[in-house]
Amino acid sequence: MLRMYDLAGAEADRRFSPYCWRIRMALAHKGLEVETIPWRFTDKAVLAPTKQGRVPVLVDGDRWVNDSWAIANYLEDTYPDRPSLFGGGAGRALSRFPANWADAVLHAGLAGLVVRDILDHVAEQDRDYFRTSREERFGRTLEAVVADREARLPAFRDTLTPLRLTLRNQPFLGGETPLYADYAVFGGFQWARCISAFKLLAPDDPIHAWRGRMLGLYGGLAGQAKGYAA
Amino acid sequence: MLRMYDLAGAEADRRFSPYCWRIRMALAHKGLEVETIPWRFTDKAVLAPTKQGRVPVLVDGDRWVNDSWAIANYLEDTYPDRPSLFGGGAGRALSRFPANWADAVLHAGLAGLVVRDILDHVAEQDRDYFRTSREERFGRTLEAVVADREARLPAFRDTLTPLRLTLRNQPFLGGETPLYADYAVFGGFQWARCISAFKLLAPDDPIHAWRGRMLGLYGGLAGQAKGYAA
Repeated sequence: MLRMYDLAGAEADRRFSPYCWRIRMALAHKGLEVETIPWRFTDKAVLAPTKQGRVPVLVDGDRWVNDSWAIANYLEDTYPDRPSLFGGGAGRALSRFPANWADAVLHAGLAGLVVRDILDHVAEQDRDYFRTSREERFGRTLEAVVADREARLPAFRDTLTPLRLTLRNQPFLGGETPLYADYAVFGGFQWARCISAFKLLAPDDPIHAWRGRMLGLYGGLAGQAKGYAA
Repeated sequence: MLRMYDLAGAEADRRFSPYCWRIRMALAHKGLEVETIPWRFTDKAVLAPTKQGRVPVLVDGDRWVNDSWAIANYLEDTYPDRPSLFGGGAGRALSRFPANWADAVLHAGLAGLVVRDILDHVAEQDRDYFRTSREERFGRTLEAVVADREARLPAFRDTLTPLRLTLRNQPFLGGETPLYADYAVFGGFQWARCISAFKLLAPDDPIHAWRGRMLGLYGGLAGQAKGYAA
């Protein structure tokens, strides 16, 4: 059985890492069962075999793999007879751009709207670490980061234009069916949904409909996870 | 012989449409020869068979095809024995996102820096049309649009982060070799190079190196086209 260290909040079943969600979805795509191990920001020591301190970390027998892109590639190469995450070599290369877009644009935009809400859900032992490390990164208090978020919502939605244009023409980034590129982008929206009630998308946005399809995949894996209504 | 209507300036060999460059590169990728027909903004009438007024327009026998994405798909489906532009069905679907990113983010950013320079190169009969239509779109004079462009250059470069992160890890968006996704993004940079001396990229930017590789493809098709040093 595969095992995965998965970021959890004060409640062990609140899982809210965008990168972990990429891999949860990728594992389901491949039909692989996984035992997820709740992990908190301050549990750095248990990840020692990977020589770094962030999740997701996948443990497959005696093999430890970290970094969502590396894990996706590990799964694709180790379980080639399962449904492909990339749809071939070109698809694998082409999946990097949307994943990098999510890292650089989507996650930054989401953090500016919901990062303060995370604090209400992190485990007690993580609260100081979370506030201190994030405020150092932003150079402001978490409260200041999310101030006026209603006013900034239209600008956030504008940054989603490349995604919106794509989903206006096809149901998934991967085409008629989802691929890793979809999970890479969806992870951010699922992260937000798990820790914040803030409404990110207009109901008539094609991205809203796509997110609904993603939430329903694999028996509602993401949609039934603890969080707020999307 | 295929024919293509290709946006040209006062000099017939100055070709500066980002969308036309996508198709010039795609045709070369497929090893298809093409006769390009210089076309100006005000030559709407000759495109009448396509019931619209923009280039690129590809003419293949009695078949007229417009819109760069539609043309790329036409070429892929009509010439399947030639090198693939997408690398398969997943690759085709995944190519939409970078193309839409170029449309929505890259081209808008580039226009804010170089749109005034276009005016120095458009054909005499296009000058009024170009200024009037673009100033209406921007709601400002072309001179106002590009004001302080040196000061805005860092912000433009920041918008390229998803592209930069990708090209830090692989030589092309398509992987080891270029695909249509590369042409879709490169078109914008080539457009800028053909009409403006403004330096967009730092020499140590991975995007700079990628652009150099793109300029050299197919015997220097793009690199030898009339324009400024990249």
